[in-house]
Amino acid sequence: MTGSYGPLVADLIGVAVFAASGGSAAVGKRLDLFGVAFVGFTAALGGGIVRDLVIGSVPPLAFADWRYAVTAVVASVAVFWLHPQLYRVRRTVLVLDAAGLGLFTVTGTLKALDANVPAVGACLIGMLTAIGGGLARDLLTAEIPVVLQREIYAIVALGGAVTVTLLVRLGGANLLTLSAAAIGMIGVRLLALYRRWSAPVAAPPPLP
Amino acid sequence: MTGSYGPLVADLIGVAVFAASGGSAAVGKRLDLFGVAFVGFTAALGGGIVRDLVIGSVPPLAFADWRYAVTAVVASVAVFWLHPQLYRVRRTVLVLDAAGLGLFTVTGTLKALDANVPAVGACLIGMLTAIGGGLARDLLTAEIPVVLQREIYAIVALGGAVTVTLLVRLGGANLLTLSAAAIGMIGVRLLALYRRWSAPVAAPPPLP
Amino acid sequence: MTGSYGPLVADLIGVAVFAASGGSAAVGKRLDLFGVAFVGFTAALGGGIVRDLVIGSVPPLAFADWRYAVTAVVASVAVFWLHPQLYRVRRTVLVLDAAGLGLFTVTGTLKALDANVPAVGACLIGMLTAIGGGLARDLLTAEIPVVLQREIYAIVALGGAVTVTLLVRLGGANLLTLSAAAIGMIGVRLLALYRRWSAPVAAPPPLP
Repeated sequence: MTGSYGPLVADLIGVAVFAASGGSAAVGKRLDLFGVAFVGFTAALGGGIVRDLVIGSVPPLAFADWRYAVTAVVASVAVFWLHPQLYRVRRTVLVLDAAGLGLFTVTGTLKALDANVPAVGACLIGMLTAIGGGLARDLLTAEIPVVLQREIYAIVALGGAVTVTLLVRLGGANLLTLSAAAIGMIGVRLLALYRRWSAPVAAPPPLP
Repeated sequence: MTGSYGPLVADLIGVAVFAASGGSAAVGKRLDLFGVAFVGFTAALGGGIVRDLVIGSVPPLAFADWRYAVTAVVASVAVFWLHPQLYRVRRTVLVLDAAGLGLFTVTGTLKALDANVPAVGACLIGMLTAIGGGLARDLLTAEIPVVLQREIYAIVALGGAVTVTLLVRLGGANLLTLSAAAIGMIGVRLLALYRRWSAPVAAPPPLP
Repeated sequence: MTGSYGPLVADLIGVAVFAASGGSAAVGKRLDLFGVAFVGFTAALGGGIVRDLVIGSVPPLAFADWRYAVTAVVASVAVFWLHPQLYRVRRTVLVLDAAGLGLFTVTGTLKALDANVPAVGACLIGMLTAIGGGLARDLLTAEIPVVLQREIYAIVALGGAVTVTLLVRLGGANLLTLSAAAIGMIGVRLLALYRRWSAPVAAPPPLP
């Protein structure tokens, strides 16, 4: 996605938003400035690093193109200084996070398909690209990953990845349809937030 | 191990069993349906993914062959619905888990040796293939990995990996001897469970 | 760094020291003998494994050269038996840990540059080589990584990685200047410990 400026800018917006989410979590855990930057970097670029390792694209883009790392660190450090103000714009952050979810799923799935990963694997890799950073953020701050606990988040990523894979395989993938897929994901994610949709939880285990 | 159906079926049984163990842990932590499937997938395929990344076989089998991912997800989701009944068959699950341990150690060690990893490294990779999924399962559910705390589990994997490596290097590796190694590991593991064998723990630290 | 014995010996000293730090943490968490060896191995070699995966050097040195794994396991197991005595020499351990920090940063950055990773990525990889093992150690023992919370540690690694990258790019990298960079990092790290320097922590979040 580095061939022209449009996708790069969109990619970097996703990086900045996810870095801000990681930085916020780190500030909440009272990590120091370095810790905030590191968790922000990991939240923004961890999913993409795993994707690139799995498809054999080394060094991963996060290390190969300095604009990714710099964007992530600047966004995290900004959160470090601005987080009280950030609290007031948390609705905006949620919208941007949904945008990052949609974007990373589309680019991750496309990269996996480009690397000749079969369809099921490409769907999983696309989903991992979108949720991997949040998983790593929660592991680094010693939390059970929120994406595993509640809300419709990863399911949106998986649905989007399946849609993108079908579009590519059926020959209908172009800027218009892929953008529509990303926008559809953003819409479902925001609706899920607004309506408080959650995936089901299993019945409690039997009493001993 | 995908050349004929025998090993594939055996491999998928290991995947299903480890997915069930991951799914059970996730249900116990009250994760949602997606979380149960994700932890099950990771427990079943995490060790193999690390093995494939370390030996440079990309994309890892978990993403390259859809039967692995589908088996893991189906087994996890089955646990989500059936876990009260599963509680009653937990002895069966422990036996199947021992079978997964034996099988994954043998296939992991063989793959590392095939990829020209030296002997000591191949033993470590074989062990990691067997215990890596359980480690990832415990990290995702915010527990100190049980394999590091008690019971003879990883030691069985390491002993099995050393045995397989010796067999290959001494020219005595064939279906019969490798099966015997796997069966021997299963036997030792079940005996360790039955007799409650544990590795030693260090003396407590000095009082301040 | 395996061309001559000098760098190898220095590398293995770093491995032994980091393994001892991992082993100590594992003993403190009451892990069994295997757990102590495993956490020690991970603390000593985890950073290097990530570095080698990211630069595409497979199998990673930790699996390709048996001396690394054996050194890590011997050092961890020694801690298992000797940890009460170790408590008395903890100042020595901190000095050795600073030495490991300096050494791993230099070798990690050089390897990344050798693998044609661009400058910013090489700095990040050099830092990760030095701090990755400690991160993994803390994740395995269910702690928020100490390197993210306090003290000048990762910043020293990052500063050292930037210095090494500048030396290489400006044509001034030789045994003398690289040794000076490592010694400088060790000095700053020890000074930070002695003066209790810490990176800043963000202001508390606003009251609800």
